[in-house]
Amino acid sequence: MIAMTGSYSNRVAAIALDSGLLSPAWAGSVASTIVSDESWLQAMVDVEVALVRAQSDAGVVPSAAAKVIEKAAAADRLDLAALAVAARESGNPVVGLVQALTALVASADEDAANYLHRGATSQDIFDTAAMLVAARSVEHTVGELTRVAALLAELADAHRRTPMAGRTLTQHAVPTTFGLKVAGWLVAVMAARERLLAVRAGLPVQLGGAAGTLAAYLEYATASSPPTTGGEAFVDALTSNFARRLGLTEPVVPWHSLRGCVAELGSALALTTGALGKIAVDVLSLARTEVGELAESSGETARGTSSAMPHKRNPVLATMIRSAALQVPPLVTVLSLAQLAEDERAAGVWQSEWQPLRECLRLSGGAAGLACELVAGLEVDATRMASNLAITAGLVVSERLVVVLTPLLGKPQAKALVTKAAVQGAREGTGFSAALLAAPELAGILDAAQLAELMRPDAYLGAADLLVEKALASYRRAAQTHRMASS
Amino acid sequence: MIAMTGSYSNRVAAIALDSGLLSPAWAGSVASTIVSDESWLQAMVDVEVALVRAQSDAGVVPSAAAKVIEKAAAADRLDLAALAVAARESGNPVVGLVQALTALVASADEDAANYLHRGATSQDIFDTAAMLVAARSVEHTVGELTRVAALLAELADAHRRTPMAGRTLTQHAVPTTFGLKVAGWLVAVMAARERLLAVRAGLPVQLGGAAGTLAAYLEYATASSPPTTGGEAFVDALTSNFARRLGLTEPVVPWHSLRGCVAELGSALALTTGALGKIAVDVLSLARTEVGELAESSGETARGTSSAMPHKRNPVLATMIRSAALQVPPLVTVLSLAQLAEDERAAGVWQSEWQPLRECLRLSGGAAGLACELVAGLEVDATRMASNLAITAGLVVSERLVVVLTPLLGKPQAKALVTKAAVQGAREGTGFSAALLAAPELAGILDAAQLAELMRPDAYLGAADLLVEKALASYRRAAQTHRMASS
Amino acid sequence: MIAMTGSYSNRVAAIALDSGLLSPAWAGSVASTIVSDESWLQAMVDVEVALVRAQSDAGVVPSAAAKVIEKAAAADRLDLAALAVAARESGNPVVGLVQALTALVASADEDAANYLHRGATSQDIFDTAAMLVAARSVEHTVGELTRVAALLAELADAHRRTPMAGRTLTQHAVPTTFGLKVAGWLVAVMAARERLLAVRAGLPVQLGGAAGTLAAYLEYATASSPPTTGGEAFVDALTSNFARRLGLTEPVVPWHSLRGCVAELGSALALTTGALGKIAVDVLSLARTEVGELAESSGETARGTSSAMPHKRNPVLATMIRSAALQVPPLVTVLSLAQLAEDERAAGVWQSEWQPLRECLRLSGGAAGLACELVAGLEVDATRMASNLAITAGLVVSERLVVVLTPLLGKPQAKALVTKAAVQGAREGTGFSAALLAAPELAGILDAAQLAELMRPDAYLGAADLLVEKALASYRRAAQTHRMASS
Amino acid sequence: MIAMTGSYSNRVAAIALDSGLLSPAWAGSVASTIVSDESWLQAMVDVEVALVRAQSDAGVVPSAAAKVIEKAAAADRLDLAALAVAARESGNPVVGLVQALTALVASADEDAANYLHRGATSQDIFDTAAMLVAARSVEHTVGELTRVAALLAELADAHRRTPMAGRTLTQHAVPTTFGLKVAGWLVAVMAARERLLAVRAGLPVQLGGAAGTLAAYLEYATASSPPTTGGEAFVDALTSNFARRLGLTEPVVPWHSLRGCVAELGSALALTTGALGKIAVDVLSLARTEVGELAESSGETARGTSSAMPHKRNPVLATMIRSAALQVPPLVTVLSLAQLAEDERAAGVWQSEWQPLRECLRLSGGAAGLACELVAGLEVDATRMASNLAITAGLVVSERLVVVLTPLLGKPQAKALVTKAAVQGAREGTGFSAALLAAPELAGILDAAQLAELMRPDAYLGAADLLVEKALASYRRAAQTHRMASS
Repeated sequence: MIAMTGSYSNRVAAIALDSGLLSPAWAGSVASTIVSDESWLQAMVDVEVALVRAQSDAGVVPSAAAKVIEKAAAADRLDLAALAVAARESGNPVVGLVQALTALVASADEDAANYLHRGATSQDIFDTAAMLVAARSVEHTVGELTRVAALLAELADAHRRTPMAGRTLTQHAVPTTFGLKVAGWLVAVMAARERLLAVRAGLPVQLGGAAGTLAAYLEYATASSPPTTGGEAFVDALTSNFARRLGLTEPVVPWHSLRGCVAELGSALALTTGALGKIAVDVLSLARTEVGELAESSGETARGTSSAMPHKRNPVLATMIRSAALQVPPLVTVLSLAQLAEDERAAGVWQSEWQPLRECLRLSGGAAGLACELVAGLEVDATRMASNLAITAGLVVSERLVVVLTPLLGKPQAKALVTKAAVQGAREGTGFSAALLAAPELAGILDAAQLAELMRPDAYLGAADLLVEKALASYRRAAQTHRMASS
Repeated sequence: MIAMTGSYSNRVAAIALDSGLLSPAWAGSVASTIVSDESWLQAMVDVEVALVRAQSDAGVVPSAAAKVIEKAAAADRLDLAALAVAARESGNPVVGLVQALTALVASADEDAANYLHRGATSQDIFDTAAMLVAARSVEHTVGELTRVAALLAELADAHRRTPMAGRTLTQHAVPTTFGLKVAGWLVAVMAARERLLAVRAGLPVQLGGAAGTLAAYLEYATASSPPTTGGEAFVDALTSNFARRLGLTEPVVPWHSLRGCVAELGSALALTTGALGKIAVDVLSLARTEVGELAESSGETARGTSSAMPHKRNPVLATMIRSAALQVPPLVTVLSLAQLAEDERAAGVWQSEWQPLRECLRLSGGAAGLACELVAGLEVDATRMASNLAITAGLVVSERLVVVLTPLLGKPQAKALVTKAAVQGAREGTGFSAALLAAPELAGILDAAQLAELMRPDAYLGAADLLVEKALASYRRAAQTHRMASS
Repeated sequence: MIAMTGSYSNRVAAIALDSGLLSPAWAGSVASTIVSDESWLQAMVDVEVALVRAQSDAGVVPSAAAKVIEKAAAADRLDLAALAVAARESGNPVVGLVQALTALVASADEDAANYLHRGATSQDIFDTAAMLVAARSVEHTVGELTRVAALLAELADAHRRTPMAGRTLTQHAVPTTFGLKVAGWLVAVMAARERLLAVRAGLPVQLGGAAGTLAAYLEYATASSPPTTGGEAFVDALTSNFARRLGLTEPVVPWHSLRGCVAELGSALALTTGALGKIAVDVLSLARTEVGELAESSGETARGTSSAMPHKRNPVLATMIRSAALQVPPLVTVLSLAQLAEDERAAGVWQSEWQPLRECLRLSGGAAGLACELVAGLEVDATRMASNLAITAGLVVSERLVVVLTPLLGKPQAKALVTKAAVQGAREGTGFSAALLAAPELAGILDAAQLAELMRPDAYLGAADLLVEKALASYRRAAQTHRMASS
Repeated sequence: MIAMTGSYSNRVAAIALDSGLLSPAWAGSVASTIVSDESWLQAMVDVEVALVRAQSDAGVVPSAAAKVIEKAAAADRLDLAALAVAARESGNPVVGLVQALTALVASADEDAANYLHRGATSQDIFDTAAMLVAARSVEHTVGELTRVAALLAELADAHRRTPMAGRTLTQHAVPTTFGLKVAGWLVAVMAARERLLAVRAGLPVQLGGAAGTLAAYLEYATASSPPTTGGEAFVDALTSNFARRLGLTEPVVPWHSLRGCVAELGSALALTTGALGKIAVDVLSLARTEVGELAESSGETARGTSSAMPHKRNPVLATMIRSAALQVPPLVTVLSLAQLAEDERAAGVWQSEWQPLRECLRLSGGAAGLACELVAGLEVDATRMASNLAITAGLVVSERLVVVLTPLLGKPQAKALVTKAAVQGAREGTGFSAALLAAPELAGILDAAQLAELMRPDAYLGAADLLVEKALASYRRAAQTHRMASS
């Protein structure tokens, strides 16, 4: 613990650190450093600097003063723990930050300090910093998803003809391919990536002043250096300079209590952990001891080994991804409900967004990183897939038999016959196949060889291969588009 | 209660009807009828018909059989209550529906019945029907939002220069305009509308068969009428005919356990109730007895009157909208978590989506309808807004005084002076203005007339008017775009 | 659809019925009828009658008038659909109900109508009715849980020595018994039952009048028949008569905007679906085709059969229970957040509770009923459990070998040796057992027979049997207590 | 950032610290230190020590070894950041902790190290540590609630006869007292405290070994020192010693995948923030500039001042409490859903609980501390309450007039007359009172003096005072009980 000096309160003795001990899904990850307290503090400093720069660009702040501020304002010269505690005085960390920054700047140049935070309200700084942090985090996550997608595309292609049991409601249904399963993962990951990119592109700066009218910005501009161009041009220039310098967009109006963009960001993050979580639950399902079709990489690390049971290799990556995916949607509820923000700034509603937003960002980013490792090292046991397909001794293609027999017998009759053979074969121990061959209705219609051919699981894969191809084509198009867009 | 016949279970005696008694936000609304059990049943019937039609289009089902099915399959010939209870046998309502429809069709033409539900799995029918219902519901809601937006645009325009107090953390901050507040509502509503339109445009059909490979569709096609064009062409034609007939899109791959699109739909609905809920909480805040700036229409109806207190007129519409907006985000959590669906169909996860999805659709649609009424009848008391602005006797423009005095005194000095005058004026009862005029630092700098002018709230509105104009321009562009798109 | 007459709105054409088509977890269940619109309406009528009766008991309303009201007030004489729609006018269904009831009573006795709803506010009626419905629903659910618990106790006892694999993070860990697993289910079900009973016992009436002061009740009492006993005695008598007549408790103060009891009720319901959901996910896990240790009853019904795949028997009951358990916790979020209810009645917050509360009640009650069926018909395959235990060829008891060898070799050495044998046996195909016997460290320490004995899974069950006994003893005590309490 | 050494991964460069910058509701609070990473680590060490001590108590571990372990095992000798990152290898922090502790102990006494973590599984340690942390946190929070309750009791008593407007759906309804409002807060806080105490009393240790059978504990006991007393006695002694040493309870059976107790803990925490959040939203409602009945302490600190607007004093404490109360319920959803934990340990479900549980603990504890400050410093403006009561010029007692006139005119007639006077008085500007006096129906029934008396808000307070007394009596009883219980 960091001992606290001063007399804030006799009940406050220390800062409690959270370094991720309870969050293996993001502990030590790049994703977590992007949204750490330090990064958030740095982003707020970046925003204060961009704001004075934007005013200087618009000709209402001397550029010399802006330079002094830019130089003096450095997050690492601030006492993070003290600022965290000071946030209790005003309910947000900006008031204390501005005081500390003002002192830093004033010690270099007293006059320059007058231009810091000029015209601004705390929410302009905090919200813009949050969007800046979110932009950095989302970009990182998109990068991880891009890697995941490339790995999945490769995997889907490699296994486009690897048959496995399709399972519905826990039971073998009909055969599918592992390639098609992976293609589905790919489609979901690409959809989440697409959505993240769209949301990232729309992340706005916040610029409105005390109640969203930009009155103080305008008043300062008029007072210190009357704009020849009129208020409209100044406001436009200010907002656009500010946004451009930070790589964010200009909102139509200030959004102090219009929180849809935060809710949308949250939803996109939940879509992301949803897509990754789907991969995780499938891996967990197929890694079960009795199923054994997938395993996480045994690699060089000790990952997944158990202290008590030497033989055990746990699917740890999938476990952590699922844990992240279970946490994000309820956190997004907080963000979604925060849209119900009364007045020009809602007491407590705004503040409720901060930690859940950070948590969603690091859980989704952390999960994306874990998914890279998971997919890269995934061990696929095609032999086990084949042997599992044989467990039901042909019942897994009973649907096909109904289809084939329908033109010959009629649909209800075909279904009744197949059902009867399934039940009878099980009850009498003769097996499904023998029971079918013994059915008088099939005499002369289906011989043993024909039946055996019909019952080959790998001959009843439908359009699996075609669907894999469609998914890969879609992936290639999207990857191509983004490459062009970013080049 | 509807008495149940038959021997389903001695513990099942009746169907419990939910007609909206506990949900005034949607009771009796068009939005609720679109997603009623009857509508859902009709949609499932529509999907079965479209499926056989699509197979007929692809040349693998006789068009005569398709016509028989289309004619015989009518939701109003089915026993809804019996189907609801029958769903307990298979965990979904499709199995019972197919049995009932088959009997209906068979009674007209035994052979045609063989083509019903051919190749399909329950989830193909249910998911596609859910998307069809969602499409109809979202289109209705978008229509309501369009009306709300038009009303808001008018209101923002009318009040672009009506000053009112900007309130942050429950306290008067600086002046704003009612027009700007409404412009914010408009921007939020348009963003939700935009998102709904995007989500609507992407609502996909479900078509995959038992485990997502389309195997039975292909097998039937080959068995009954070998396609000359090969499997690829058949699958493409089938999916595209099916989607076209229903006004939905073709997914890249079947999404039986890839539920991102449902989660995205849910998020868009939460964005919608969030935007409407923001209007509601603002109306509630401004309708308080002590504030009195807004009131709901007293119109010709008795809406909002109290049985016990004759004088009371409650903001009932805002109340109902807020109640809807509080319910939707947690329901979306269910949809978002349903992405964690293992295997080709996850037992219980898929089923958990249905009622929450319906509830989100009718709450958002209902809230949009209520918002039309609310905005159309909103009574704005500009006089009260002005008198409330005067409550703090000038303190509401203290920010401006700091700004104006900063070039003269320096920023910290200006702020200290204004704070001192505020405190002193309050403590000594002389008022803020008198305290300022008595400050020796301002002698010769600011006279009473200048101060009075500076302290006029309506002279410190910043860029409020400009921001209203930007919001209206953005609205007009979006409205224009959608008009062109839909024409 | 029920056609609506009258001129409510040109946009309202019909009542949308919800009969459970999308909610197989409760469709047609007793649990759903207890909370139906009709039942809720009946409860509100019951409350109005109890209120006038309680006032009559306290001597401030003529008992003749109370009798007239009791006789005339009947839910089945009311137009439910009309009341549902009318609730849109006041935001709650009570205002319309009082009008309709007044008309009914007045048609029998004009004077008696004056005593209906006397002194009351809508929330007194609605909240008390909600508690009444909740009480009936919780009692029903407790009854179902009692049956589930009895079945589980029997099952745990029967399988207290049936070995099966203990599975952690999807992998076989060490052996356990099916009896111990069931004993865990039993403990969880009994804990939920205990909590439901505690919450049921505390369900309070609501009685406060317009703003919670009971002013109108007192005023009417004084006006019509001045109480000789003073206000305190009257208020106490009124509340206690009211509560006694309805089988509910007296709250310390009116709780119009103190919603903790609703939140607690919700939590208890989530605890219930959590306990049942745990059973469901275990059944689903063990019913997987590859595991095959459990199956739902194949009974006489067609439950769980698939339309397309004749061989499939789906675990439908577990599926529906899981679907319920996934929906309840997010719904409880609405109830929990509704504690943030400002003032004496919070606009929209109160209203947001109603439908989520009903949904939680019927999902938990429905799930409890399904769990009875599930447990009663559960098919346990002890042979399959044994053969699955053998899959890892002894690795499932590797922990035991480390324990046994630790005193001989030291803990790190023992663990290293066992791990090495596990890896080597797998790599070289000789098996774990052979690899151990070949280890020079074990020469003279462990012979083949000793090793075989050590590796018997059924010889490494720890305290499983004892734990089952503890669970059964705890169950018997609790069952005994409640029997005495209710006798 | 703390630089990471070693080669864990090239993508892991630093530990991201969370010191509460985004969580003013708990930053720097005692509540947050109780659940910090350091405290959690300490608790895990405490549990390992208690486990070896309990085994020593039971006579199966040499007490000398236990002493060595107790002495060597110290959280501050461990590298927290390294352990946090190492948790990614196994998905939980215990595996790394055991390795590090083993090295520490072995460096003091190689043999003693063999007894560390003997028989245990990671979940035994982690879950027990979590309960230990939860116990400490809940006890702290109960202490804060006790202080809050004492302050509220005093405040309710002081204002039991302070009239204020009762407000429903944002509108003045009838008069109430500030004392009654505070009494309601008190009742809610005491109910939450009661629930926390009950939940605290039931917090269990976790002790089950790899799959919940305690097999390894028993095997070690038998192997190293055959218990003469038989397995039952050993297991009972072990569990009971373990629980007693940690101040936790013995569960009926191990609860590795029976997570109801964590869900119940979460619910109790949500009940707590709900009760505190209710206070916060009421303070926010009554602190609005136009209402001005309550204000947070202006004290000696700068709390609540605005950087931009010198006059503003924001209700910062209420703001932070509300922000906490908005976050907790959705987090509890994660805990509640975690009951759906399949098998003996559910991959990812267990892990999803950790951070949400910590967040709920520190948010509720932090909010309780803030509530102490809030209530202790609350400024009550009884004069403003009285003047606000007069705003409606008597309409606030219109209910009373209906009551009084009902025996004279009949209920419908009385209501119609009062409504008419209210409308007429407003429309014609004469006022409600004058309109009533002018009503011919009241001629000779009610004169101006009688009417004035009837319209005094402070004469229509119903049972407010009595209800305050009931709340205080209930508070005193509960406080007394707990004092006795804890003495």
